[in-house]
Amino acid sequence: MLFFVTGCAGFIGSNVTDRLLAAGHEVVGFDNLSTGLPLFLEGASRSGHFTFIEGDALHAATLTRAMAGAEFVFHLAANADVRFGTHHPKKDLEQNTIATVNVLEAMRLNRVRRIAYASTGSVYGEAQVFPTPENAPFPVQTSLYAASKISAEAFIEAYCEGFDLQAYIFRFVSILGERYTHGHVFDFYKQLQVHPDYLHVLGNGKQRKSYLYVQDCIDAMLLAIARAPQKINIFNLGTDEYCEVDDSIGWICEHLGVKPERRYQGGERGWIGDNPFIFLDCSAIRSLGWQPKLTIREAVIRTVNYLQHAPAALEART
Amino acid sequence: MLFFVTGCAGFIGSNVTDRLLAAGHEVVGFDNLSTGLPLFLEGASRSGHFTFIEGDALHAATLTRAMAGAEFVFHLAANADVRFGTHHPKKDLEQNTIATVNVLEAMRLNRVRRIAYASTGSVYGEAQVFPTPENAPFPVQTSLYAASKISAEAFIEAYCEGFDLQAYIFRFVSILGERYTHGHVFDFYKQLQVHPDYLHVLGNGKQRKSYLYVQDCIDAMLLAIARAPQKINIFNLGTDEYCEVDDSIGWICEHLGVKPERRYQGGERGWIGDNPFIFLDCSAIRSLGWQPKLTIREAVIRTVNYLQHAPAALEART
Repeated sequence: MLFFVTGCAGFIGSNVTDRLLAAGHEVVGFDNLSTGLPLFLEGASRSGHFTFIEGDALHAATLTRAMAGAEFVFHLAANADVRFGTHHPKKDLEQNTIATVNVLEAMRLNRVRRIAYASTGSVYGEAQVFPTPENAPFPVQTSLYAASKISAEAFIEAYCEGFDLQAYIFRFVSILGERYTHGHVFDFYKQLQVHPDYLHVLGNGKQRKSYLYVQDCIDAMLLAIARAPQKINIFNLGTDEYCEVDDSIGWICEHLGVKPERRYQGGERGWIGDNPFIFLDCSAIRSLGWQPKLTIREAVIRTVNYLQHAPAALEART
Repeated sequence: MLFFVTGCAGFIGSNVTDRLLAAGHEVVGFDNLSTGLPLFLEGASRSGHFTFIEGDALHAATLTRAMAGAEFVFHLAANADVRFGTHHPKKDLEQNTIATVNVLEAMRLNRVRRIAYASTGSVYGEAQVFPTPENAPFPVQTSLYAASKISAEAFIEAYCEGFDLQAYIFRFVSILGERYTHGHVFDFYKQLQVHPDYLHVLGNGKQRKSYLYVQDCIDAMLLAIARAPQKINIFNLGTDEYCEVDDSIGWICEHLGVKPERRYQGGERGWIGDNPFIFLDCSAIRSLGWQPKLTIREAVIRTVNYLQHAPAALEART
């Protein structure tokens, strides 16, 4: 099958690309290289079944041409920067919502019927039900990032109804693992490289968050695509556990053999719009036979281990 | 107080403008006149407290300049055409979502803190709870119109969190009354003018819908703005009843004294993405002391009566 993968040079996109190629598929990858790294595509490029097209999903004509012949779209390109949304208020709208509608239009014009979309558990806003199921009460958004993602979900659903697409919408917790290049583990690791004796922590360290290892995440997506039969299939993707930021700091420090003084910024939120508790009910995807292989602790340590041995190009970039 | 009203020449916008002026406020009205009618602003223009600025909310600079000095924004400009969304797939995104983000950006730049937004009960998709409350289960969208409206809601909420705005989001049923210029009563009236002996009906006539008289709708909005204290205030606006399309046809025909043959297109939906049952739980707005003065039947008849005596300019346009 010919897959079209947007954001193919990113953390999740490049891992998805490698897995699709390993399963014997053809992949056309599309990325504007604004945050993705060509380094992550070196393996794919050697496969003989991968084509890279540098382009921006905001350029509808380029996108539409690039998608010709595709049978399935993994739309993983996004502005994944949750924390700094208010620093550039239109970026989430453009890169997450408008880009997604461009992908949908390109699909309509190319008669591609199936799409998998990387959404986020933060679309539940400050959820009132934990673990939070897919049909949780109508959410109120707290960040531009989540607003742009629920908007993209909504347009995907409307295209399914109006133009007979089939969609797989995945609401991720934070994803960890190889090629991870932003987020709290990354921030803490970088800080401890510079000053192992202290650590700045956003919020009070008590924020409760969920994490999932990237290969477990991809296992779940590939399983859903193979088995979920509805026109619109929506799945939370996470582990059946959560941890406090303080737990994660403990694991990271133990692994690195450091004992920094923890300097808390304070407050129950890490930043404006941060959700102090994210814990998703993943029984829907589990009912298809999936379960994660790594615990949150194992995923955190594997990520630190990856960062310790990160390629020079990644080190230079960060 | 100085109100800025987008869509001021439209059905609801012009009625809101008149009510604000009657209450002694200043109004700056903004409209691109794509569907609004200057005719609807004749009274406002005579008031001495109304300024009209012709402009498009998609032109951010024009919008931002026009909003200078405003204290409250009624954002009522929208593509209100639910039925033909799939005929021009990007129109809802542009006119409802992107235009709303432009309004929010203009507010941020002008330091305007309060916004009332006209959303829609169709954001509940095919609701599973009736009457449908504001915190109904996480909806799945069925139309580009509703997708664009829930997207606008989401960005408004994120701006409230990120930039300390205060918002009033109103999810309307279909609104009827003076200056009504599209929808089923309008379509049926126009048909019966041309051929009183038969009537084309989309769907099977059994679709159950709710309606609200425009002045009752405005009463509710003005009350909410005066009394609801939260940062984000979300209200369904409708009557505590619904009717079948067939009921409405009966009232219209009785009023006009015609007995057309009803020619049903068939199917339980009027068009792709149509919701066959809309009935909102309006107990939240009622708890503030509001109740509608007109029943659905009275609102339908008042609308037909308005169309019978519609000004020449409206007749010519349609």
